[in-house]
Amino acid sequence: MRIALDAMGGDHAPAPIVAGAIQAVQSTPDATVVLVGDRARIEPLLPTDYPRDRLEIFHASQAVGMDESPVDALRKKPDNSISRCWQLLAEKKVDAVVGAGNTGAMVAGGLRLRRFLKNVRRPCIATLMPTAKGHCVILDVGANVHPKPLHLLQYGAMGAIFAKHILGRENPTIGLMNVGEEEGKGHELAQKTHELFGNSPLKDRFSGNIEGRDIHRGKCDVVVTDGFVGNVILKLCEGVFDFLMKMVAKEVVEPLTVERAAAQKALDELVLQYEYSNVGGAPLLGIDGICIICHGSSGDRAIHNAIQMAAKYARCRLNEKIVQELDGLPAVDDE
Amino acid sequence: MRIALDAMGGDHAPAPIVAGAIQAVQSTPDATVVLVGDRARIEPLLPTDYPRDRLEIFHASQAVGMDESPVDALRKKPDNSISRCWQLLAEKKVDAVVGAGNTGAMVAGGLRLRRFLKNVRRPCIATLMPTAKGHCVILDVGANVHPKPLHLLQYGAMGAIFAKHILGRENPTIGLMNVGEEEGKGHELAQKTHELFGNSPLKDRFSGNIEGRDIHRGKCDVVVTDGFVGNVILKLCEGVFDFLMKMVAKEVVEPLTVERAAAQKALDELVLQYEYSNVGGAPLLGIDGICIICHGSSGDRAIHNAIQMAAKYARCRLNEKIVQELDGLPAVDDE
Repeated sequence: MRIALDAMGGDHAPAPIVAGAIQAVQSTPDATVVLVGDRARIEPLLPTDYPRDRLEIFHASQAVGMDESPVDALRKKPDNSISRCWQLLAEKKVDAVVGAGNTGAMVAGGLRLRRFLKNVRRPCIATLMPTAKGHCVILDVGANVHPKPLHLLQYGAMGAIFAKHILGRENPTIGLMNVGEEEGKGHELAQKTHELFGNSPLKDRFSGNIEGRDIHRGKCDVVVTDGFVGNVILKLCEGVFDFLMKMVAKEVVEPLTVERAAAQKALDELVLQYEYSNVGGAPLLGIDGICIICHGSSGDRAIHNAIQMAAKYARCRLNEKIVQELDGLPAVDDE
Repeated sequence: MRIALDAMGGDHAPAPIVAGAIQAVQSTPDATVVLVGDRARIEPLLPTDYPRDRLEIFHASQAVGMDESPVDALRKKPDNSISRCWQLLAEKKVDAVVGAGNTGAMVAGGLRLRRFLKNVRRPCIATLMPTAKGHCVILDVGANVHPKPLHLLQYGAMGAIFAKHILGRENPTIGLMNVGEEEGKGHELAQKTHELFGNSPLKDRFSGNIEGRDIHRGKCDVVVTDGFVGNVILKLCEGVFDFLMKMVAKEVVEPLTVERAAAQKALDELVLQYEYSNVGGAPLLGIDGICIICHGSSGDRAIHNAIQMAAKYARCRLNEKIVQELDGLPAVDDE
C-alpha cells in the first residue's frame, strides 16, 4: 500500500516526521511512504542508503502553519503539503494520508473532497485512550461540534468496527457519554441519541449512558460523543496526565535516595507507554480512504506508529467493513 | 452561623457524615451544625461529651437514595433529609446546607425554592480543581445542561468572586472552555459566549478560549462551561486520577525493594492531597443561601472541609459580593 505523509506537518517538522517514515518503511515491508513537502528540506534528512522504491518525495512548495486558520490557509496556499496529500488520495495515487500538522486543515482538506463512504453523513475523528482494560475508542474528538443523533449512531457503528478489527475486541460495547447513567439524563442530543441506539440494530452492543469516570475504568470499548465534548476529553486527559506525572516525579520519585534512578526509569517507561501524544494517531473515519491525524508534537515514534496503523487499516479493509455495517442502520434522521 | 448537614446523604452515611460534623464543630468555633436525618441512627454516633449547643439533630424520617430519580424521590418522600435541609434554609433557620447525597436531588431541592440571588438567571455548581498553579474554579459542573450565553457570563462573574474571596486570587482570570484558542472556534454557545464576554465589563478578566489541556496547567483561575461539559470534565478527571495513581503504584512503587514503603507513603499523601473526591465540596452558586454539594463517597475529612468552606463562604459574605458584581453586568439575553 502507498501512504502519503505530510512531511511539513507538526511542531518540529520535518526532521522527526522523516525519521518516523524511515523507521516505518523498515518495519512495514508492504508500505511505501510518499513524503509530501519541500524537497529541499526533506532530501538532506534521508540517509544515503534509504530504500528509494519505498520512500518517495512529492514536492509541495507551501506548508500550513500550526496556528493558521485552516480555511484561509487552504485557500491562500494552493500548493500546501496537506492539500497535496489529499489530492494524491483523491487521485487514488495513495491509499492513506498521515499527518501531524494543523488538525483543522487536515480535516477540512479531507471533508472538502466530499468523498465519504456510502451512507456516512459525517466523518469523525476517533482516538484511542488507555484504560484499565486496554485501549478504548472515543469518537468524535473534533470533526463536528454540532452532530445529530444519527451521526452519533454512525460513530458508534464505525467505532465498533474499528475496535473489532484494529483492537481485536470480539464483541465491542458502545457507551454514550453523558452526565449520569440513567436513561433520560443529559441534554437533548444525548437523550435522542440514547433512544436511537436503543431502537437500532446496535442495541445489543449499546451499554447505555456512561459518565466521565467510566472511560478509564474501561467500561466500554467504544465511547460516542459530540466533537466538542470529545475534543475537551482528549485534551483534558493530556493535561491531567502531564500534571500528575510531574507531581509523581516531584513528590514520589525525587525524595528517594537509594532507588531514585530505578523509580525514575519506571516512571519514564510509564509515561512513554501512556502518553496521549504518543499512541500514534487518530483516524478520520467515514471518508473514502484512510487518514490518520497525529498530535502536533509527534516525534518519530508516533509517526512510525501512525503509519503502521494506516497500513493495518488498509490491510484489514476497514472501510469495506464500515460500509457493510452502516448498510444495516437507519439512514434517515431529522435533518 | 448555622449549617444544616444532610446526615443521611452519601455512600456510607450516616457514620462518616456525623464524624465530619464532630470534627467541624471542634475546628470551627463560630459554626453550629444541624444534623438532619434519622435521629435513631444519628444519636448513637455522637460521643457522650459532644457540644450539644453547637451540634443539633433535626429529625427527618426519610432519605433519598443515591440512585433514585431526584424529582420522583423529592415528591414521594416529603420528609426526606434533603428537603428538610432546604426547608431550614428557606425558613432562615440555617445559613447553609451541606450534603453528600444524591446530587440531582440536592440541586433540585434548592432550585425548587426559586430563591435565587438578585439578577441570577440560573444557579450553577462550581468545583475546585488542582492545577500546576493552585486550584481553579470550574463552573458549571452539572446544574444546567442547556445554558445560554448570559448564564455563562454570570457563571464567570460568580466564579471570579469565588476565586477572589475564597481562593484569595487578587485578579482572577476567566477562560471559556472550547476546542481551540482562536476566536470563532467551537459551537454556537461557545462563539456567542466569547462575544458576550468580550463586550462585557468582565472583558479585562476574560482570557478568551481555553482548551482541555489548559485547565491543569493553571492557565485561568476560573473556567466557564456548560453543565454537560463541566460534568464530564469533573468525572473524567476523577477517573484519570484513579487510573494513573493505580498505574504508578503498580509500575513505579511496587517494584522498589529498599524504599518501597517511603515511596508508597509519598504516593498516598499525593493521592490525599489531590483526590478529586476529597477537596470538600462544590458550592451551588446563585441561590439565596449557601449550599455545598459533596461527593457521594465523601469521608469525614471531606465533610469537615465542606463545612469549613460553608463557614468561610458565610463569613466573607460571598453572596452580597456576587449580587454587587452581577449588578454591573448586562441582564438581558436572547431568551
